[in-house]
Amino acid sequence: MSDAPELLEDALVLFMPSGRRGRFPLGTPVLDAARQLGVYVESVCGGRGICGRCQVSVAEGHFAKHKIVSRADNLSPVGEAELRYAEKRFLPADRRLSCSATVQGDLVIDVPAESQTNRQLVRKRAETRAIERNPVTRLYYLEVEEPDMENPLGDADRLLRALETQWALVAPRIEFHVLPQVQAALRKGEWKVTVAVYEGDHVPLVVAIWPGFRDRLYGVAIDVGSTTIACHLSDMLSGRTIASAGTSNPQIRFGEDLMSRVSYLMMNPDGLTALTHAVRGAIESVIDKVVTDAEGTREDILEAVLVGNPVMHHLMLGIDPRELGGAPFALAASGAISMAARDLPLGINHGGRIYILPCIAGHVGADAAAATLAEGPHRSDEMTLLVDIGTNAEIVLGNRERIVAASSPTGPAFEGAEITWGQRAAPGAIERVRIDPETLVAKVKVIGNDHWSDEPEFEERLEEVGVTGICGSGIIEAIAEMYLAGIISEDGVIDGRLAERSDRIVPERRTFTFVLWRGRHEIRITQGDVRAIQLAKAALYAGIKLLMNRLDVERVDRIKLAGAFGNYIDPRYAMILGLIPDCDVEKVASVGNAAGTGARMALMNRGYRSEIEDLVKRIEKLETALEPKFQEHFVAAMAFPNKVDPFPASGRR
Amino acid sequence: MSDAPELLEDALVLFMPSGRRGRFPLGTPVLDAARQLGVYVESVCGGRGICGRCQVSVAEGHFAKHKIVSRADNLSPVGEAELRYAEKRFLPADRRLSCSATVQGDLVIDVPAESQTNRQLVRKRAETRAIERNPVTRLYYLEVEEPDMENPLGDADRLLRALETQWALVAPRIEFHVLPQVQAALRKGEWKVTVAVYEGDHVPLVVAIWPGFRDRLYGVAIDVGSTTIACHLSDMLSGRTIASAGTSNPQIRFGEDLMSRVSYLMMNPDGLTALTHAVRGAIESVIDKVVTDAEGTREDILEAVLVGNPVMHHLMLGIDPRELGGAPFALAASGAISMAARDLPLGINHGGRIYILPCIAGHVGADAAAATLAEGPHRSDEMTLLVDIGTNAEIVLGNRERIVAASSPTGPAFEGAEITWGQRAAPGAIERVRIDPETLVAKVKVIGNDHWSDEPEFEERLEEVGVTGICGSGIIEAIAEMYLAGIISEDGVIDGRLAERSDRIVPERRTFTFVLWRGRHEIRITQGDVRAIQLAKAALYAGIKLLMNRLDVERVDRIKLAGAFGNYIDPRYAMILGLIPDCDVEKVASVGNAAGTGARMALMNRGYRSEIEDLVKRIEKLETALEPKFQEHFVAAMAFPNKVDPFPASGRR
Repeated sequence: MSDAPELLEDALVLFMPSGRRGRFPLGTPVLDAARQLGVYVESVCGGRGICGRCQVSVAEGHFAKHKIVSRADNLSPVGEAELRYAEKRFLPADRRLSCSATVQGDLVIDVPAESQTNRQLVRKRAETRAIERNPVTRLYYLEVEEPDMENPLGDADRLLRALETQWALVAPRIEFHVLPQVQAALRKGEWKVTVAVYEGDHVPLVVAIWPGFRDRLYGVAIDVGSTTIACHLSDMLSGRTIASAGTSNPQIRFGEDLMSRVSYLMMNPDGLTALTHAVRGAIESVIDKVVTDAEGTREDILEAVLVGNPVMHHLMLGIDPRELGGAPFALAASGAISMAARDLPLGINHGGRIYILPCIAGHVGADAAAATLAEGPHRSDEMTLLVDIGTNAEIVLGNRERIVAASSPTGPAFEGAEITWGQRAAPGAIERVRIDPETLVAKVKVIGNDHWSDEPEFEERLEEVGVTGICGSGIIEAIAEMYLAGIISEDGVIDGRLAERSDRIVPERRTFTFVLWRGRHEIRITQGDVRAIQLAKAALYAGIKLLMNRLDVERVDRIKLAGAFGNYIDPRYAMILGLIPDCDVEKVASVGNAAGTGARMALMNRGYRSEIEDLVKRIEKLETALEPKFQEHFVAAMAFPNKVDPFPASGRR
Repeated sequence: MSDAPELLEDALVLFMPSGRRGRFPLGTPVLDAARQLGVYVESVCGGRGICGRCQVSVAEGHFAKHKIVSRADNLSPVGEAELRYAEKRFLPADRRLSCSATVQGDLVIDVPAESQTNRQLVRKRAETRAIERNPVTRLYYLEVEEPDMENPLGDADRLLRALETQWALVAPRIEFHVLPQVQAALRKGEWKVTVAVYEGDHVPLVVAIWPGFRDRLYGVAIDVGSTTIACHLSDMLSGRTIASAGTSNPQIRFGEDLMSRVSYLMMNPDGLTALTHAVRGAIESVIDKVVTDAEGTREDILEAVLVGNPVMHHLMLGIDPRELGGAPFALAASGAISMAARDLPLGINHGGRIYILPCIAGHVGADAAAATLAEGPHRSDEMTLLVDIGTNAEIVLGNRERIVAASSPTGPAFEGAEITWGQRAAPGAIERVRIDPETLVAKVKVIGNDHWSDEPEFEERLEEVGVTGICGSGIIEAIAEMYLAGIISEDGVIDGRLAERSDRIVPERRTFTFVLWRGRHEIRITQGDVRAIQLAKAALYAGIKLLMNRLDVERVDRIKLAGAFGNYIDPRYAMILGLIPDCDVEKVASVGNAAGTGARMALMNRGYRSEIEDLVKRIEKLETALEPKFQEHFVAAMAFPNKVDPFPASGRR
């Protein structure tokens, strides 16, 4: 205390892109300066010059606005830790490790995107929106004191103390299953280890341990659909999605649609076990697929987020879904579920955590909640309609003020079932249709062939990809074009008088049929097919109308179509047929797998978990079957586009 | 609001035995009055007249001191709920359900012991001390709202809401594995269920569910010793121990003493798995035994508390104990461990919880911590010495101010190993010895025969129970009596000159041997046996002296001898040989299985868990091997009773 150091000079440091600035004593590590200003710079090793995640660069020059002359040599010379890191792992010439480099003069510091902890991540598909990173499980590198006979605290207890002193975690604990690994890891890593800590609960919990330094941590977001299971693998440290894969839901062998799976389970004593086993196995295999693609192992995965419709939600949890089969459609559990990975065998790290988004109602599942989280009607002033069409259509309507949700029993017609020539969206399926209003001859486009059927190249591909049926979006276009060409009336009747004018209209029993395609097969749209679509679209539209009535609105500002079907239909045709209410066509968009996006958001950022949990509590639920006006709306919506409501934006009427 | 009720008169109610009193409006249920005064009256059903646990009776008469004239009819007449309960389950004539009976005049209310939530439970063995009940897992009876389509909260979510509103639990959650059972239980119980809630963590956690009303909840306290595993089954609602059982530790086949088990595991790649599997299997079987005795099932057990020495502690947790085999004797984990029962397969309810007391040091385990908790030197002003003698002696010394602990390497001599005719304490083993100082002939008593060998009845039993060896306490008496009879010197040498006087002293190689018993076998105490006991007792005493030095005390006020060996030795003989320091003989006592008692305390009352966790942190640990004075104390203690220290209280010197 005798030789007090001279009063140090200080320097002005400005961080970009945040623009935060402050004065710091010479000798302050740049990382410390950043932290004091609340500028997020990532660091896994805690400033030991090991992880290299805290890289920054100096923006040189005269910054008149900030009154700073910033020069690279206003940082301390490259030190030992940086040389060591550069040798072992590579450090670009203009980069410095902010934990080692100290302030020696005025500086403008660029924090590159990959060093920003709260970095923004841009989704590739659909609208570009940021996912800030704030994961529930993080890695911490630790140097643990060696054991001491006079103070015989256990190795695990000293490790926890290191977490408290070196990372300021409060009263951390260690999961029981990690205990047997602690001593070996500490000795192998020479008292240096990396631990994964789950911070989603009241107490930070050590859930995994590795000797030495480690910076690999993966997470998966999984959308468990009735037909398809989709999985995205994310690097939890960079935020990047590094692999995606899908697999078909093997439960299909117990029944194509959900209700036939519920009946299977009611008829078979081991049905629940079989269905649960099948879906968990499929999830495990799709996780294997993505992690193999990423050249990692299952052990690298510490987080999984799952979404699904209520029946899939229950089945993957091992809950009997039969109550969902009849009124009052009681969910066993509606709230979000967080559990240890070892309680739900999906093959990820034994210390991993699984999070399942909340369900909204008995027919509006965690997938709808995830889609709502992704598309965010609650973050918008616009009256937004979000529709996810499957066997049930899940409908969410609202804005910042108020949100209401329901499901409508559309049946499987939109998926191509119940349609004579209907098929899944696969190569050979007709997906686009144009009908010449004069000749009533249709030209088509099929999946797997880039050309319209009236182009010469179409024939060349025909050997490889035939014309085998019509997929969901193709049916919508076919019927809309039939309606535009006058082949069907507003009431959906195929006009038999046209048979005189065109061989494409042919009598079939007491009704008429339209020949859409003549080739190896003659692909037809029957009167029954038109009726099936009428019923489905009337149910969908009636559901939407009930929500609009509940919110007392006449128009919606924006429509978002989610899911596979929503991704491929042309919004204009959907409006021509009156599937969705009239809206500025520019403001109708397909949003792809919104449920999967919502799952990834909840994976990357714990804030989104609270957001959707809070939102689901305040979403008003409407049971379409109980609404007295459902029938009235349904009948009006049987017509094309509607008996009552105008559709000016569709360009018709 | 118009017809305001008349202002009610109030009455004075006095609760016994607590003596709390207060005035209450006429019509107040007695249970409510008790609660307002903080008088604990148990209730599982929450005042619905179902559980019958809230019984009270009226003490009639004139209580001048309190100015109360108490009459049975100052309670409301027996109501419907009470009649229903009495019919179904029996209610003694003088008993009332305090949830139903209301105050109608001045009353003195007796709360019988079984209705007091914080009831005192008296231990049968050793000193009588109370275990207050404050368990971590409790039962709650609930009436859950039926599902409602307009407010489609899941069944589990409504159940949690009922816990909040009916029992004032804050933000409870439900364990994942309970979810699949919720719907069936609610429907079977017609929306009435009983749940078990674990309240040992930050969030109340529903861990089990049963349809309807239920009031059975068991817990087990288990002391996992190297040789024996002891288990007590407690009724967690009444506090009673309803069954006890023991089994031998099957790990014995891998090695009698702990270190030979550690070597087994170092020599065999699957050794850890085999040892862990063996001990868990034995724990499971002893749990089965007690629960079968109590005519219950494993599902009834929601809590288990385990204690054991450090090696057993690690092995039952599946942790490799080899670090405990050498300096610095590092424990993998020293802190208390709380875990879900499904993480440690012992066969109790899947939703149960397991608690393991903290270890004090590498050789002073959770069993010593439990014994300390039970015997409570930290609750006393007296300088108390607690000794648990096994292969290692675990020693704790201190009082309210300060506590210090160590272990001493006594070796297995006190357990009868390394002694020529040593054997376990089993029928046929000599346990008591008296030597005639004139003839040098010994009379003995053996386990399984109530008579001394010089009584005629002794012979009659001899056919059934022979004389097969000497147990630990028998050896202490034999050597002490030999010393008192002058057969061995202070230095432990058998005096060969006595061979002239008695045929009981016989030469054997270059030393002499004492014949303790002549029968089918000639049971002898050799010079080597005396040396073995000298080494063991010197190690024990040296350890105790180091602790006394550390606390700077010359004498101890009280000595408590725990464990099987401590339970059977005569404290006076222990003092004559100088095993333990000089102390008023009245204040030396055997305390039986103190570790088991401590485990039961931690089972019954969560307060004891924090007490021992806090205490272990402040116990000073001493590693005898590192203390420079150990050798000096050891050498002095080789003599009988000691070369340096006086033993006036033993009646000698």
